[in-house]
Order: sequence, then C-alpha cells, then structure tokens
Amino acid sequence: MKFKKILVTGFSESEMESSYWSRIKNVTDNIEFSSATGNDLVPLLSDVDCLFVKFNEVTKEMIDSAPNLKYISVFSTGYGRIDAEYAKGKKITVCNVPGYSTESVAELVFAVILEHIREIERARKQGREGNYSETGFSATEIKDKAFGVIGLGQIGLRTAEIALGFGADVRYWSRNKKDCSEKIKYANADEVISSSDILSLHLASNSETETFLGPERINNIKKGAVVVNTAPMELLDLDALEDRLKKGDITFILDHSDEMTKEDLKRFSQYDNCIIYPPIGYISKEAGIAKQEIFVSNIENFTKGNPTNSVN
Amino acid sequence: MKFKKILVTGFSESEMESSYWSRIKNVTDNIEFSSATGNDLVPLLSDVDCLFVKFNEVTKEMIDSAPNLKYISVFSTGYGRIDAEYAKGKKITVCNVPGYSTESVAELVFAVILEHIREIERARKQGREGNYSETGFSATEIKDKAFGVIGLGQIGLRTAEIALGFGADVRYWSRNKKDCSEKIKYANADEVISSSDILSLHLASNSETETFLGPERINNIKKGAVVVNTAPMELLDLDALEDRLKKGDITFILDHSDEMTKEDLKRFSQYDNCIIYPPIGYISKEAGIAKQEIFVSNIENFTKGNPTNSVN
Repeated sequence: MKFKKILVTGFSESEMESSYWSRIKNVTDNIEFSSATGNDLVPLLSDVDCLFVKFNEVTKEMIDSAPNLKYISVFSTGYGRIDAEYAKGKKITVCNVPGYSTESVAELVFAVILEHIREIERARKQGREGNYSETGFSATEIKDKAFGVIGLGQIGLRTAEIALGFGADVRYWSRNKKDCSEKIKYANADEVISSSDILSLHLASNSETETFLGPERINNIKKGAVVVNTAPMELLDLDALEDRLKKGDITFILDHSDEMTKEDLKRFSQYDNCIIYPPIGYISKEAGIAKQEIFVSNIENFTKGNPTNSVN
Repeated sequence: MKFKKILVTGFSESEMESSYWSRIKNVTDNIEFSSATGNDLVPLLSDVDCLFVKFNEVTKEMIDSAPNLKYISVFSTGYGRIDAEYAKGKKITVCNVPGYSTESVAELVFAVILEHIREIERARKQGREGNYSETGFSATEIKDKAFGVIGLGQIGLRTAEIALGFGADVRYWSRNKKDCSEKIKYANADEVISSSDILSLHLASNSETETFLGPERINNIKKGAVVVNTAPMELLDLDALEDRLKKGDITFILDHSDEMTKEDLKRFSQYDNCIIYPPIGYISKEAGIAKQEIFVSNIENFTKGNPTNSVN
C-alpha cells in the first residue's frame, strides 16, 4: 500500500537526512509539514492517513477528526503523550523507535565512570595548562569491582557486558531474570544496591518504579560507591538522595538533567559529589542514524503489512 | 636463607607501606637506606648481599665493590640502567616488577578515548556552570569501530579484550602471533595502522621498535582516527607526527609526557588535536598495591631459592 497523505508534526525536515525522506516519499503520494501542535492540528487532519509525531500530543479529538488515519509514526522512544489506547480502538497502529541509543548510553556510562575514577577532567585541564605532573592524582580500577546493574533491559545488558570486558564482578537485578551470560549474576535489588562499588541504574520510569530507590535503599548504598543514573530521576527519592550526598560517602553521576526542575538542578549542583551532565547519553552519530533507520523501516514495514515496533 | 644486609637506594621508606617493610625485615638481619646514587654508593657496598634500586644506576664498578652481592631487586618495571649482564657473570640475580599496572593503563586507554569521543571534559564543565543543554555536542561509539592494537603484551591484550566488550572490531599486530581470543584478529602492522578508527599503541621501547611509526606509517593512519599512545614516545617519528597533526585529520592522545622534552611538549601542545595528559596511566591504587606485593614476593621467593621475575 501507499499512503495518500502524511502529515509531519513535532519535528522539522532538517531532523532527518534527505535519503530517509526519499524512502518515505516512495510510500506516499503527498507529504505536508505543520508546526501546529495539539488540537490546532484538527483542521489539517481530515484527509491524513499517516501522522508523524515526536514528543507532541495526539489527543482523542485529533484522532476523531482524522477518519482516514491508519498509522501514527513516533520519531522517539517515548510515546506517553499519544492516546495509543484510543487509537487502537479506531484500528490505528502506533509505532515508536526503541533501542536506537542503546550503545550510546551504555558507552556513556563508562565515559562518566572513568572520568570520575581517573580524574580525567582535572588531568586534561592540567595538561592543557602545561603542568604534566602526576603528583596528587589518585585512581581506582573497574576490574574486580562489584558492578551492579538495576534494570537489565537493552541498555542495562550492554552496560553489564561492557563491565564484564573490564573484568568487573557483575550482578544485576531486574523484574525478571534474563537469559544472559552466566557471568552476569542475578541478585535481589537490595543486595545489588548495598554491595556494589559501582552501581548503574537502568529502570524505565513508570508507576511501579517511581522512587524505586527510596530513603532506605539510598541509605544502604555502599560507602564509597559510584552511582550512575542514565535513567529518569523519578526512580529516586530526591530528598533522601540529597541527605546521602551530604554525608559525602557516595558519588552520584547523572545525565538526565533535562528532566529535572531548575530548583532541583540548583540544589544538587552544590554537592561536589553530585556530577550533573547535560543529557548527552543518547546523542551519538550512530544512534542518530539508527533512529532514522528504525523510524523509516517502521513506515515501510507498515505499508508492507508487517508493522514493526507497534506499541498498541 | 636470610640476607645479612639490604641496602635501599633510589627510593625512600615512604614509597612502600609498613606491612611490606615488615615482610622484608623477616628475610634480613639488617636494612640500611641511602640517598647516594651511582658510584657514590661504592663505599657502602662491601658487606651488602641485597641491593634495592628503582630508576637508579647499577654500574660494573658498583658490582665489583660488592663481593657479597647475590640479589638486586628493582622497584620498577624498567631496569635499563642496571648492568644486568655483568651482574649475571657475577652470579647476581636481578629481578624487576613487571605487569603491575596492566589494568590501570588499559582502563586509562578507554578513559581518554571516551573523554574525547563523548566530549566529557566540555560536558562536565558546562554542567558545572549550570548549562545543561546538549545542543552542539557530538559523539561517536566504540562499537563496530575498527580498533587496532599495536603490541599485544599484557597491556595491549587487556586493551583488546576491553575493546571486545565494547563490541569493537579488534585487530592487532605484534612481533609474534599470540594465543588469545580468535575475535582479536592478527593482521600486519601496516594494515592495522591504515585501517583502524581507533589505534592503541603498546610497543615496548627498544632498538627494534624505535620510530616504529615513521613518516610513512604515520602518513597512513586512517583519516579521522583517534590514536592513543600509552607507550614510550620513542616509537614515533615526532616530526612526522607533527606534520600529520597539522593536517588536522587525526587525534593523538598520550600520557607519556614525562618522557618528552620541554621543547617537544611545547610544540605538540599547540595542536588542539594532540591531547597530552600527565603520566597517570600507571597510578591506580590497585597498581600501587600490586607493585609492592610483586616486589616483596620477588624477595621472599629469592630467599626460598625460587627467584621470580628474574631478568638476567
């Protein structure tokens, strides 16, 4: 099949390379772009059979005003602002782009751990200033450290595998035991949290995982541990985290500053043992290409009658 | 056996923890420390049967003036300033401390690669300044990159293994093929140098390897490659390296600034694509402990008649 009309909303033409737009043009008679959002899009939807969105909303009202709509293609992993259940009732397929940044995020975990345990920023700065003395630098190794992963999804698994490469003693907790290398050992969450020298958090955010790390678990993090969170900050009780940071006996590193309020960023940035990165986990060039490839493949597969990455 | 008298030269008591000194005291009747070096030590050697040295010289004259000397214990890996052949002729065993910093150096390779390809210093600084925007950051992944290792000794091998954990396509050249994972593929040096996206140098410095990377090989390094040298800079023709850096199409990262002249540091530090670290590769806490443990075990093993890490 071919679409009659694709409406692109929530992102601009420049966010995808022309070769991908060419592939999209092969499966539609017509593409339109709109910078409108939400119900302002209602007047444009009457003849649309395929809708592209990114982080923007798709309401019941929008769906009701698109009688020909068959397919909503989401140019991101998250699709929480789309009423996917309502769409399902109208036999509209919603597909997202999962997993494109798996490697990018997993590699960033090691970039920020190694920066911290090897004092890389300080060393680079000192070298740049022409001071090449190693006096006063200290370092620890990843090898033989207890390396804990909370949440063994795609990113958690790759993080665990890379940690194995470093020779760490890797254990994980996840809602379900996973079929992975036996060197990645399953343990209960409290044990992983209290015994890990390095702890990497990879839980998805949902009603079950909110403040998964509450006061008790945060208090039980091993003294001296380095905790890396490349997952949403909703997983943590922020007041309990602040109390623990005040003790000065853990280091907390995060790259989800985009999901924190200005006030929270301000209060956490005052602790030297809280290292806040811009959200650079997902931004590798390879992730960008994979994202476009998966997005366009989803569309092509739908037109061939084999939808991929459907979420409803 | 027990030594009658150990003379400690080239390093001070504070460079080794007291527990190690206690173990040494168990194998000798007497320890003396001297800050003298070279032939100034001659008058102190007449009754010495064990000599500790670090980077300092042991000359023929010193050996000739130590008629009871049985054992020279070197508190470092390098022993180039010791006349080990002449000592052998006098039936004096020389032992060094190899391999203690294997993990420390191999992990640093990834610390500095990841710093570069993820713009970690810039991201940390920006975060610290309260700017949490990821706009303008770019990144690449290690996964699927051609990762070349020149010199598959202990450090090169661990570097290759960690690169495998990251999912890189790993190839190596070494003087001899090694018995390692078949995923670490052997190739000739020119091929490794010209095809690698990331190239890590791990050759020992000797007359055979001096300027191993001469003008032709340096010119053949792949465009866009990141080259990491945690080995001696003697491996490279510095003028050819400077010419290549001027082209701006490779990045060169080194942590052997301690072995470069002030003039060379100055000329290379002017290139943004040459990142010079202080020599922090070997300094992990674990390496420090391993170094002391190997050194003291060498001594204990010698007294038991089973010398370890003998170099002559």
